Amino acid sequence: MERFVDLIHKKKLGRELSGSEISYMVEGYCNGSIPDYQMSAMLMAICFTGMNDRELTALTLAMRDSGSVSDLSPIRGIKVDKHSTGGVGDKTTLIIGPVAAACGIPVAKMSGRGLGFTGGTIDKLESIPGLRTDLSAAEFFQAVHNAGICVNGQTDDLAPADKRIYALRDVTATVESIPLIAASIMSKKLAAGSDKILLDVTTGNGAFIKDYEQSLALARKMVAIGTNAGKQTVAQLTSMDEPLGFAIGNNLEVKEAIDALHGNGPDDLMRVCDTLAAHMISLGKEIPFKQAETEAKGAIKSGRAWEVFLSMVEQQGGDTSYMEHPEKLPAAPVTIEYRAKEDGYITSMDTEGFGVAAGLLGAGRSRKDDPIDFSAGIVLRHKINDLVQRGDVLATLHTSKKELAEAAAGLLDGCYGFSDRETEPVKLIGDVVR
Amino acid sequence: MERFVDLIHKKKLGRELSGSEISYMVEGYCNGSIPDYQMSAMLMAICFTGMNDRELTALTLAMRDSGSVSDLSPIRGIKVDKHSTGGVGDKTTLIIGPVAAACGIPVAKMSGRGLGFTGGTIDKLESIPGLRTDLSAAEFFQAVHNAGICVNGQTDDLAPADKRIYALRDVTATVESIPLIAASIMSKKLAAGSDKILLDVTTGNGAFIKDYEQSLALARKMVAIGTNAGKQTVAQLTSMDEPLGFAIGNNLEVKEAIDALHGNGPDDLMRVCDTLAAHMISLGKEIPFKQAETEAKGAIKSGRAWEVFLSMVEQQGGDTSYMEHPEKLPAAPVTIEYRAKEDGYITSMDTEGFGVAAGLLGAGRSRKDDPIDFSAGIVLRHKINDLVQRGDVLATLHTSKKELAEAAAGLLDGCYGFSDRETEPVKLIGDVVR
Repeated sequence: MERFVDLIHKKKLGRELSGSEISYMVEGYCNGSIPDYQMSAMLMAICFTGMNDRELTALTLAMRDSGSVSDLSPIRGIKVDKHSTGGVGDKTTLIIGPVAAACGIPVAKMSGRGLGFTGGTIDKLESIPGLRTDLSAAEFFQAVHNAGICVNGQTDDLAPADKRIYALRDVTATVESIPLIAASIMSKKLAAGSDKILLDVTTGNGAFIKDYEQSLALARKMVAIGTNAGKQTVAQLTSMDEPLGFAIGNNLEVKEAIDALHGNGPDDLMRVCDTLAAHMISLGKEIPFKQAETEAKGAIKSGRAWEVFLSMVEQQGGDTSYMEHPEKLPAAPVTIEYRAKEDGYITSMDTEGFGVAAGLLGAGRSRKDDPIDFSAGIVLRHKINDLVQRGDVLATLHTSKKELAEAAAGLLDGCYGFSDRETEPVKLIGDVVR
Repeated sequence: MERFVDLIHKKKLGRELSGSEISYMVEGYCNGSIPDYQMSAMLMAICFTGMNDRELTALTLAMRDSGSVSDLSPIRGIKVDKHSTGGVGDKTTLIIGPVAAACGIPVAKMSGRGLGFTGGTIDKLESIPGLRTDLSAAEFFQAVHNAGICVNGQTDDLAPADKRIYALRDVTATVESIPLIAASIMSKKLAAGSDKILLDVTTGNGAFIKDYEQSLALARKMVAIGTNAGKQTVAQLTSMDEPLGFAIGNNLEVKEAIDALHGNGPDDLMRVCDTLAAHMISLGKEIPFKQAETEAKGAIKSGRAWEVFLSMVEQQGGDTSYMEHPEKLPAAPVTIEYRAKEDGYITSMDTEGFGVAAGLLGAGRSRKDDPIDFSAGIVLRHKINDLVQRGDVLATLHTSKKELAEAAAGLLDGCYGFSDRETEPVKLIGDVVR
């Protein structure tokens, strides 16, 4: 076998690594025979010279195979997984999971915690009193069987190579790389064991990748990997140029999801959820998108999606009375109203800034084991192209301490743009990559 | 202070690092607060995005200042250092050092051992029985005072940051980077304490950097660093498209240097030495190049350079009787004649191949502490544009074992190109950068 330094050199020159060279790299890094300092140099070289689809597939499969791959075959039907590249106010999984399950798609999903400004789906679920996300395999299968859906926490054994490599990337400025991001996401999706994969690739000023073309490139890479790995994969680009819906923060988002499941969600959230749910249903039932969209809307209208949601919460140990009466969910002790500083149309929202502010209020964590304040966050009252007057309430801040609210309010001062004319509406639904 | 990961990110984006950020990097790496895996990622980023002259000067000075900087002020006059980027058959220091000293330039030089296929100047000197290259500072100054010249081994305390960083580059495929090479060389030259610096930047198929434009770029970077550090620096490009002179290997090269000091050196070697010596004398005496060249030639013709050489050997403890009678120097037990496999003009020589073959015969070392066979090597009989016939002796191989000679002969089979017409002569002396 070649020395690893020769492989770094090869990649530095932009040449293709073979499948066996890539396996050697991932296995060698995991077993310690390739040291951190060589792996970080390789990762930086990949940031500059990239990887083609053949290399990326090999890298993704090697990372997938570093741990155990879930076997979902005990669950009948075509299992469709859904993943979002992340955004602010993104509670879509809580809505479209039950919608898809209500339409007969088994949803056996593993989700992650959030790291960064806002919580992940698991954090949002855990804001429901009693709800568990550490179900054993047997409990997980039973829950899917009984409710048609279960959203469980990721096991430590899910693509551990990705975890190790990500930790190194995080401290060596090699996170920002389309191919490495694509391989990281897809290694976990492939290990999660579903039959088909729907990717919600967010783009815009609140997304991890802000540039549309770059987001599209990421979508294409991930679809290529999924397809090469034998799993039908569809990516939908959606905008994060303003927060999704009005609620940002864990139990605040659960409340908004409950409204949505009752058919009363904000328009932008409903449009994104209808589109994503339609993709899941189209993939799972192998029916046309339009027909799937009609089914998705019907599942909400009929109340079946809401019933599935309640059943999911119950199967995972959650107290459904809080879902029936979401006003019972713990409320933040401090709420302040954030008011407009000028008159005009809201023409821009620094979406990442809202995420940072929500994190500051207590909704996120900056270290893996930091606690989260489930009731903290922001509820918006206005979004882009709303006409407001100086002094109008733009948002309510929910937190545990007055000083945090004041600091977050200070941040929000820089997050709004105003103008005396309306701007182009946000193009919420972008390209689809198959 | 910023986190180092932010500096890696900055450099990844191709932005300029400030002087204090670069000092923080070098100091942090040396004191262990910046781990190898971050430094290697930074080095790889530098390979791709480069460094401007301001950054390079800061990097070089920080590496210089990681150890002690020689104070050569006890030696009167303008001290001129000379450095070669390395080549095959490069014995110029043994010749131009004494020539420059004979012309009144104090030569107080530190040199390195060779790593790779052939020995360094220190190895060549140590092939002279008795000669020491581990002189104390006092002995060094005394030798310069008495002989006008001393070539001593590099101390461990010469730019230790460069040594550490180089060791990391070696295993992370980050050696090949014009700015990093320039900073590495110049940190040692600046720490060696001379007043002015002459750089012999070799180029061509036997040089570390083979492309002429890249070699010129390296020369320009090094001259910029030297100038920014307040030391007048001149770089002369010279060709390594064939070995320099006829001898390759430590005491074989000493013998050829002795011939050269007697005015009987091969034409190409004499031309390079005259040019380099003229630069040193021009720098040291602040006289025009042409005048300096006349002085350099005169120092050989008059025998003064030879007298200085003998005095240098004596001051460093060497046995001058071997210099007076170089036929007494240990000879290799095995010599075989390497013959032409075809008729025609020699139109190309893979110079690096000759270096590798000489290393195989015993003239080099692959690890830092490997012993060297001082009598091993190659003596060429023919060079580019010589007309030879099949069966003519092209070279004599000197070694300790018949099998090594056979293996080296096998290598040489691939090192010659023949044609029925002459080729362009090698352009030995290239551009000068000041």
